[in-house]
Amino acid sequence: NSTTLSNVNSTSEHPNLILTKQGVKDIRVNLGSIPIFDESLTETKAEIDTEIENGIEVPIPKDYSGGYTHERHKRNFLVMQKAGVLYQILNDERYAKYVKDMLFEYAKMYPTLPVHPKPRSYARGKLFWQCLNDSNWMVYTSQAYDCIYDYLTGEERNMLENDLFKPFADFISKGNPQFFNRVHNHSTWGNVAVGMMALAMDDDSLLQRALYGLKDVNLNPNMKDNDGGYINRDGKVGFFANLDEPFSPDGYYTEGPYYQRYASYPFLIFAQALQNKKPELKVFQHKDSVLLKSVTALINLSDADGEFFLLNDAQKGMSYYARSLVSAVDIAYHFGGNNPELLSIAQKQGKVTLDDAGLAVALGIREGKTQPFNKNSIELSDGPNGDQGAVGIVRSGDLELVFKYTAHGLSHGHFDKLSYALFDDGEEVVQDYGLARFVNIEQKGGGNYLKENKTWAKQTIAHNTLVQNKTSHFQGKYDIGSKHHSEQYIFSVDDIDLQVASAKENKAYSETQLHRTIVIIKDEEYDNPYVLDIMRVTSETPNQYDLPFYYLGQIMQTNFEYSKLDTPQVLGKANGYQHLYKEASATASGDNIKLNWLLNNKFYTYTATTSNNDDIIFGRIGANDPEFNLRNEPTLILRKKNFKDALFVSTVESHGTYSPISEFAVNAYSNIRNVSVIYNSNEYTAVQIEMSHSKQNIFIISNENNDSNKEHNLSIDDIEYTWKGSYTLINL
Amino acid sequence: NSTTLSNVNSTSEHPNLILTKQGVKDIRVNLGSIPIFDESLTETKAEIDTEIENGIEVPIPKDYSGGYTHERHKRNFLVMQKAGVLYQILNDERYAKYVKDMLFEYAKMYPTLPVHPKPRSYARGKLFWQCLNDSNWMVYTSQAYDCIYDYLTGEERNMLENDLFKPFADFISKGNPQFFNRVHNHSTWGNVAVGMMALAMDDDSLLQRALYGLKDVNLNPNMKDNDGGYINRDGKVGFFANLDEPFSPDGYYTEGPYYQRYASYPFLIFAQALQNKKPELKVFQHKDSVLLKSVTALINLSDADGEFFLLNDAQKGMSYYARSLVSAVDIAYHFGGNNPELLSIAQKQGKVTLDDAGLAVALGIREGKTQPFNKNSIELSDGPNGDQGAVGIVRSGDLELVFKYTAHGLSHGHFDKLSYALFDDGEEVVQDYGLARFVNIEQKGGGNYLKENKTWAKQTIAHNTLVQNKTSHFQGKYDIGSKHHSEQYIFSVDDIDLQVASAKENKAYSETQLHRTIVIIKDEEYDNPYVLDIMRVTSETPNQYDLPFYYLGQIMQTNFEYSKLDTPQVLGKANGYQHLYKEASATASGDNIKLNWLLNNKFYTYTATTSNNDDIIFGRIGANDPEFNLRNEPTLILRKKNFKDALFVSTVESHGTYSPISEFAVNAYSNIRNVSVIYNSNEYTAVQIEMSHSKQNIFIISNENNDSNKEHNLSIDDIEYTWKGSYTLINL
Ligand SMILES: [Ca+2]
Ligand SMILES: [Ca+2]
Ligand SMILES: [Ca+2]
Ligand SMILES: [Mg+2]
Ligand SMILES: [Mg+2]
Ligand SMILES: [Mg+2]
Ligand SMILES: [Mg+2]
Repeated sequence: NSTTLSNVNSTSEHPNLILTKQGVKDIRVNLGSIPIFDESLTETKAEIDTEIENGIEVPIPKDYSGGYTHERHKRNFLVMQKAGVLYQILNDERYAKYVKDMLFEYAKMYPTLPVHPKPRSYARGKLFWQCLNDSNWMVYTSQAYDCIYDYLTGEERNMLENDLFKPFADFISKGNPQFFNRVHNHSTWGNVAVGMMALAMDDDSLLQRALYGLKDVNLNPNMKDNDGGYINRDGKVGFFANLDEPFSPDGYYTEGPYYQRYASYPFLIFAQALQNKKPELKVFQHKDSVLLKSVTALINLSDADGEFFLLNDAQKGMSYYARSLVSAVDIAYHFGGNNPELLSIAQKQGKVTLDDAGLAVALGIREGKTQPFNKNSIELSDGPNGDQGAVGIVRSGDLELVFKYTAHGLSHGHFDKLSYALFDDGEEVVQDYGLARFVNIEQKGGGNYLKENKTWAKQTIAHNTLVQNKTSHFQGKYDIGSKHHSEQYIFSVDDIDLQVASAKENKAYSETQLHRTIVIIKDEEYDNPYVLDIMRVTSETPNQYDLPFYYLGQIMQTNFEYSKLDTPQVLGKANGYQHLYKEASATASGDNIKLNWLLNNKFYTYTATTSNNDDIIFGRIGANDPEFNLRNEPTLILRKKNFKDALFVSTVESHGTYSPISEFAVNAYSNIRNVSVIYNSNEYTAVQIEMSHSKQNIFIISNENNDSNKEHNLSIDDIEYTWKGSYTLINL
Repeated sequence: NSTTLSNVNSTSEHPNLILTKQGVKDIRVNLGSIPIFDESLTETKAEIDTEIENGIEVPIPKDYSGGYTHERHKRNFLVMQKAGVLYQILNDERYAKYVKDMLFEYAKMYPTLPVHPKPRSYARGKLFWQCLNDSNWMVYTSQAYDCIYDYLTGEERNMLENDLFKPFADFISKGNPQFFNRVHNHSTWGNVAVGMMALAMDDDSLLQRALYGLKDVNLNPNMKDNDGGYINRDGKVGFFANLDEPFSPDGYYTEGPYYQRYASYPFLIFAQALQNKKPELKVFQHKDSVLLKSVTALINLSDADGEFFLLNDAQKGMSYYARSLVSAVDIAYHFGGNNPELLSIAQKQGKVTLDDAGLAVALGIREGKTQPFNKNSIELSDGPNGDQGAVGIVRSGDLELVFKYTAHGLSHGHFDKLSYALFDDGEEVVQDYGLARFVNIEQKGGGNYLKENKTWAKQTIAHNTLVQNKTSHFQGKYDIGSKHHSEQYIFSVDDIDLQVASAKENKAYSETQLHRTIVIIKDEEYDNPYVLDIMRVTSETPNQYDLPFYYLGQIMQTNFEYSKLDTPQVLGKANGYQHLYKEASATASGDNIKLNWLLNNKFYTYTATTSNNDDIIFGRIGANDPEFNLRNEPTLILRKKNFKDALFVSTVESHGTYSPISEFAVNAYSNIRNVSVIYNSNEYTAVQIEMSHSKQNIFIISNENNDSNKEHNLSIDDIEYTWKGSYTLINL
């Protein structure tokens, strides 16, 4: 897995990582007439001028993230990168001198440093508590070094390279093979750190290490990291392995968009540098242009406000406004054929990178090439070959539903097969909890993962999907979960009024099969589309099935009686149940249950079919949470006891609005009168939905044949239904 | 209390309530060149054209608010008013005919109507479940009638007046004296409904009834309404009594801004009509121009977004964007000397009324007269003569603190003497719960007050103020509370870096005196000001004192150990305590306690002094809430057991920010190292605040002499402090 690099097209001119000599010339010529670039430059200059005035601080490493030394070193590398770029663009030696002075502070300190004093990481760094952050430092610092390379004397470069950069690169690679030789976002940063610095130093042997990994290292294949993920089970190593493995051919990153956002910076910045210095590697064409696809995939994985969907470990609020996405969008535009839709994202971001890619975007905008980036329904396959399930995003009106039938997602994966989350005009309405962590907030566990991430956030009951016998999918074991993935069954979104996504999961529980179908139907009688959710469970053994529904907001009304407990009770002992309080309960009669609630001045209704004697549990997150780490948000759990096969059918509507100013409530009630299963067999499931205006819709799905050309006919209550394809909707 | 109206200046021309003949001419001349008016007109025309197309519906009354017939009749009167105005401005008979046809539908139905079938009100209407809403109908309909008066034949007018308007006016007045003869926002609507229709019909005897009340009615002075408020204890009746009583000379409305907003429409619309038809009444000059002052007072009672502070019964989210405030601002501008600051509010509102007042505003904006409305610290006295306490609003930087030391606030008052709430850039950070009601949301108790309003929202423990022996102020009895008010002590805000509001409450508990002082200090070392809160309690008997702190957001950290309960326990049996869960608790050591929390990506810290063995209780709202009517929000209660005198001292800081996009936490920790009481006697209290940069501030207040010229000297730990005035701040 190694190639010899030719040096035919490579150049040892500087700068040549993110800026090129020609790029710098072009930028200088256009300055003052490229508004988005000019503004980004002004902002950066103001920031760096202040930093220069405040002086250089390179403290002895001491803290976890959130603490002073951590945040200071983090600021230093960001600032050095910007100062380097300013030197090139503005040709003002103050900036070069500032970078040089700071680098020499580091060069003086680094050789004296022991491993970082904080012990929590499986791969402790020197500047930071983990090699990951040391790698961040070098990814940025290599760019700064490249920018001031020609400003330095040969002797100065030798000192920096020998005292700082090479030992630094060795420490995060040879010194930490369990970190470097791995397929993981951590290793991507490690590989790219070494690779970027190798390019800056023109060190081809170091570049080989970055691209193809450390040689002759034998790690125990059962070794795990802090998150419980395997370090390396299959021996794949190096940048290209990190590119091949986690990205599907559609550009979906298996850890999910939150970590893709984080990893996209090293992937794309290194690709840019490789393209500039080693064009013969054709990195942007690699794996059918997967890096370019990954950028549009990531944008598609965001809600109406640009905030990323919560898949696996993910902090709410992260969006395509993040710094790394500015780079990603600009690089994808510049190196990916100038897709004009990316310009609209750049315009929303309101800034560009101060390099060749940013210039290209600024020129594109100036020339009026911008086109809107239309986010439509889309399915993104998972797995290196795209055959390990997928995430299906169904969009209709203001609704965006994210349906997850992927592989596990490496060490950041959650046990959430066939779960979904629903967004309405960018607001999460039926939520995925996200992670249990306050990233970089030191007072919450040093800003790191909290123990509730494992005991709560990753567990199946924390998600909108089926739990059997109060046990998480794959027994909550990463070893098992990471071997499996769900199976795509249908993704059919050509008819905007009837979009269907369907998937199966046969491995989460042995002897039990799950088949979930999500349909979004736009009925012309009503303003908004509604969601139909069919979760079909078949098993060889009788089980208890829980299907939670994590609505956000305040209960307005139910159509059934429930009794509130005097005081909440803890719902269970393990697998996440220990973090849920039961606040109220009811017993179903077999009729529909309806939950009507209000969130952000919109009215929603959940309508579900029941069997007689099903339990209805009103839950709230927050039990066994000794440090108030969890958010106290509600859920409604429908529980079927002692069933082999079971069918959960529900609808979710966004049907009305409230104004606290006019105090008008508009369409406060559900438009759905009744939902019922009128047929269910191994072959077919048919659901009838009676609307308030007395129309009826019947949705029929073929459970065993998803061929879109197959002709079906089915008789229900003496009525004959015939159709072609895996499903049909009949309007009566 | 009655005057004979002269008809010298009155006119029987129509229209002459909100539009005048001259006003209509002026509007027509300016149309097309007054953007804010033109837009309002276009919007209204579009709305009414749709309504006309949809046809007239006048259903038989049946529902509570939120229900179909209620909402339809409400829409009808709003639509009639607008259609009437459109007829005048556009001179298009379609609009007149629409109003006429709808009025005749009402005239046909009204004589057949029994009292409304829903029984919940103390004063049931005919179109609506309460006379209040019937009055709303007539306030708007009178305007519509005035607009089409000349379009109708004399015979048509006779029919409408005899079959509909007069019996309607009689029913809400003579038919419901307990509603009409009263000082209350309900009665204001009733008086104005009758008065507006009297003006439209030129019926001076009816106008007398509106202005001075029904004669010869003897109501039982102990009669109460649904909210527990007295109907009429002192015999004051009619529009002028409703104007004199609830408004203080500063224009503060004793029920609070939420109800002022509601009442301001009838007050101002009727004043406008009176000014047009009965200028000799000089209604706008009445009580030193109290109506005009009330509009600026109301704007001052809003946060940075224009949302009203939560005083007494008040629904969150109501703001000066409400329809009634558009009228109020426009009328106050037109009839109050064209205050150019009001134009900036009108511009934010983005619309004007389609009448003479709206035209004046539109012309003012067009002529560039707009000036910003600067909201500064302000004290607004309460009581008809301004001597029943006050509300003090202290503003500094992005902080707005609302300190309540008013009278009770009639039947909408809460038992919340000396409570405060804190806003940061328009977001409520330390909250007043508001009301327990979802206004007009039918599925929540018909959209009416929920029982938790009385059992929770009005109780003292629901507020950020002191509770003695788990009993609300005035034993939670309206009869007692409504007889008393707090005493203003200091309101001194001239120094923006040191603002002080201080008040005393001696009647809430017999034998116990409360004295609270709120100071907002801007220390030049820090970006934001901070709040210092000194609550001093003196009593002749030992008591238990609870001081709750209703922070909103998620706990990040405390500086003390606490133990979370396995399951929440209910905190008490009555007086609101039955609605609180205890989630965790701790025992104080006598050192400061610190609570650091995150809300909307800002970091806050509460720091409080304690005595050894004080209880610290982490509470959450939501116990004994069988229908999920309450919001499950947190509180921290500091409890001092078995003290006669007690001193609660705390600081609140907004000191830092978090970005979920950059994931940077900035200034996540408190800037206050320690707060301590260094002196406390009947005469003086002195608090020392040690800042993180080792500066110290000492705040000293004179507890018994608030003369701003008095010279004080005090020796504390052998240091002599001398100053002039009721307080001082010493920076060491
Ligand atoms: Ca959003
Ligand atoms: Ca949003
Ligand atoms: Ca606000
Ligand atoms: Mg999750
Ligand atoms: Mg979002
Ligand atoms: Mg209150
Ligand atoms: Mg607000």
